[in-house]
Amino acid sequence: MRRFATIKDIASALNISVSTVSRALRDTYDVNASTRQAVLQKATELNYRPNFNAIGLVHNRTHNLGILLPEITNYYFSTLFTGIQEVAYKAGYNLTLFVTGNDAEREVDIVRNLSLSGLDGLLVSVSSQADSDQHFQEVIDNGVPVVFFDRVSENIHTSKVMQDDYNGAFEATVHLIKNGYGKIAHIAGPEGLTFTQARLNGYLDALRKHKLPVKPSWIVHSGFTQQHGEQDLEQLWERREKPDAIFAVNDRKAIGAILALKRKNIRIGKDVGVIGFTNDPVAAIVSPSLSTVAEPAFEIGKLSCELLLKHIHKKRFEPEQVTLPGKLIVRESSSRL
Amino acid sequence: MRRFATIKDIASALNISVSTVSRALRDTYDVNASTRQAVLQKATELNYRPNFNAIGLVHNRTHNLGILLPEITNYYFSTLFTGIQEVAYKAGYNLTLFVTGNDAEREVDIVRNLSLSGLDGLLVSVSSQADSDQHFQEVIDNGVPVVFFDRVSENIHTSKVMQDDYNGAFEATVHLIKNGYGKIAHIAGPEGLTFTQARLNGYLDALRKHKLPVKPSWIVHSGFTQQHGEQDLEQLWERREKPDAIFAVNDRKAIGAILALKRKNIRIGKDVGVIGFTNDPVAAIVSPSLSTVAEPAFEIGKLSCELLLKHIHKKRFEPEQVTLPGKLIVRESSSRL
Repeated sequence: MRRFATIKDIASALNISVSTVSRALRDTYDVNASTRQAVLQKATELNYRPNFNAIGLVHNRTHNLGILLPEITNYYFSTLFTGIQEVAYKAGYNLTLFVTGNDAEREVDIVRNLSLSGLDGLLVSVSSQADSDQHFQEVIDNGVPVVFFDRVSENIHTSKVMQDDYNGAFEATVHLIKNGYGKIAHIAGPEGLTFTQARLNGYLDALRKHKLPVKPSWIVHSGFTQQHGEQDLEQLWERREKPDAIFAVNDRKAIGAILALKRKNIRIGKDVGVIGFTNDPVAAIVSPSLSTVAEPAFEIGKLSCELLLKHIHKKRFEPEQVTLPGKLIVRESSSRL
Repeated sequence: MRRFATIKDIASALNISVSTVSRALRDTYDVNASTRQAVLQKATELNYRPNFNAIGLVHNRTHNLGILLPEITNYYFSTLFTGIQEVAYKAGYNLTLFVTGNDAEREVDIVRNLSLSGLDGLLVSVSSQADSDQHFQEVIDNGVPVVFFDRVSENIHTSKVMQDDYNGAFEATVHLIKNGYGKIAHIAGPEGLTFTQARLNGYLDALRKHKLPVKPSWIVHSGFTQQHGEQDLEQLWERREKPDAIFAVNDRKAIGAILALKRKNIRIGKDVGVIGFTNDPVAAIVSPSLSTVAEPAFEIGKLSCELLLKHIHKKRFEPEQVTLPGKLIVRESSSRL
């Protein structure tokens, strides 16, 4: 037994479409005045009450957070998103997701065109090509809280959630050294991104601490995909002196390196050790399985969103910087001993 | 040289925070009347003009589409999302993403609480546990166009974009038969979902057409993860008569089956053939590499979004049903001959 008339009842009483009634009730521009008048009159007459789902009353889910990600088709970022979503859903916030495709121009375009009036806060992981971050400062200056995570902007004073890239890279490199590898190359991300720089520094300091040579020709910068990893490995194998181990900035590049080494019939884990960073599920599937540093992606997503909600609810806040530790996971690709 | 005052100028002139000025200009509830009055007066005085990025004028990017996905942390759905995003971005629409986690209750909760007034249209791939779809009918009845993709709802009369699950499954099974496998099992998805039923039917018809036995004990229904694939394989191997090939409803389950078979030291592609469905990048990484039916995920995303935009711009539309073909990709896991 319905206590109120529905939008369908109004439509059939007036012999017009449900869609027209809906538009009239929402007062959109494409319904003429007389139709709207008739709809409103009939709505009153029939004791129409807007359906609860039409106005988002039950959980008051009318708040919005924006999320800016460089990519979504990889394990790390989609897991981050899932962590964010867990917190947002429970707090009654919707998530508007923007994916830049690692394109700095698109990032600026998206941020400059955000409709800030409908946005309670913004979560950002910056594009790898970005060389300016003024567009984020503008968002903050307009009173919308911003939290950076993973790929953070160094120049903007706001809250940031990261994993411990330096120590993770340091530990991964030391692990290779302890397993008897002494000529360790690094296939890195693009230059100029904070987190890839931190991983590079961890790698360099581990070599220095163990008095191993730092050879610039064993450090290759490129993008983040498996294909980049394959290309980087090929480049390294053109060097006069070849390395005997690879520390890759992420698992996808490490897997690219593994595939390229397999094509060369090089025994991975024996002749050449490989370690990645992320703990993508594929690291356990590839053969030999890939040693790596597990990143707390889900946790980073959760924490970033919790921090953003805190900033939204408390006008005056001190930006916080949170760094979560990674975890070394040893598999076949690095266990020479 | 700035021609207009910024929000910062107002803040420093009044000696209050930028955030308070922003809130006053946006007329939020938590700024008291006298502050708001002072801000508005100063804004006029200083010739303040809202920053273009604050009102989304440049590309008129103030439109919103909702997307409901069962998951985002897998290749298929994240690629679908990327296809949707390509079209939406160019057309100036933002995407609000809801992930149900394959939870029917959460799906209903999300849909019933959608703020339809801010939503121009909805793209949906249904949760695997959903046994009702009335909540989608309510959205449509409220005048918001809905397009289903991939996991569609059979009972709702609206546009749908799918891949050809039946023919893909038929082709995959025939491929196994032609490679000399005669005892073919199917590790399926949950019962009651249209697309898993279509893949089951393709498998059954291929067996029948080639006069091969259909054994109910060789058909196992469970979830979509790699772990489910491992469990299904273990179940099959408890049967009195074991199969000599596996057709899996997706690549993740096929990879689970491969890992379980490897633990049993069964030679994949020789003793037992395996074929999946999706063409997840991991299919080429696993060893032996996985034969599969490639799904046009990016294309399905693009087409769904194009169709939705068409429906949004044309009030009276006839729902369309589009089915895109898959493509058989033969790798090591099925090439016995």
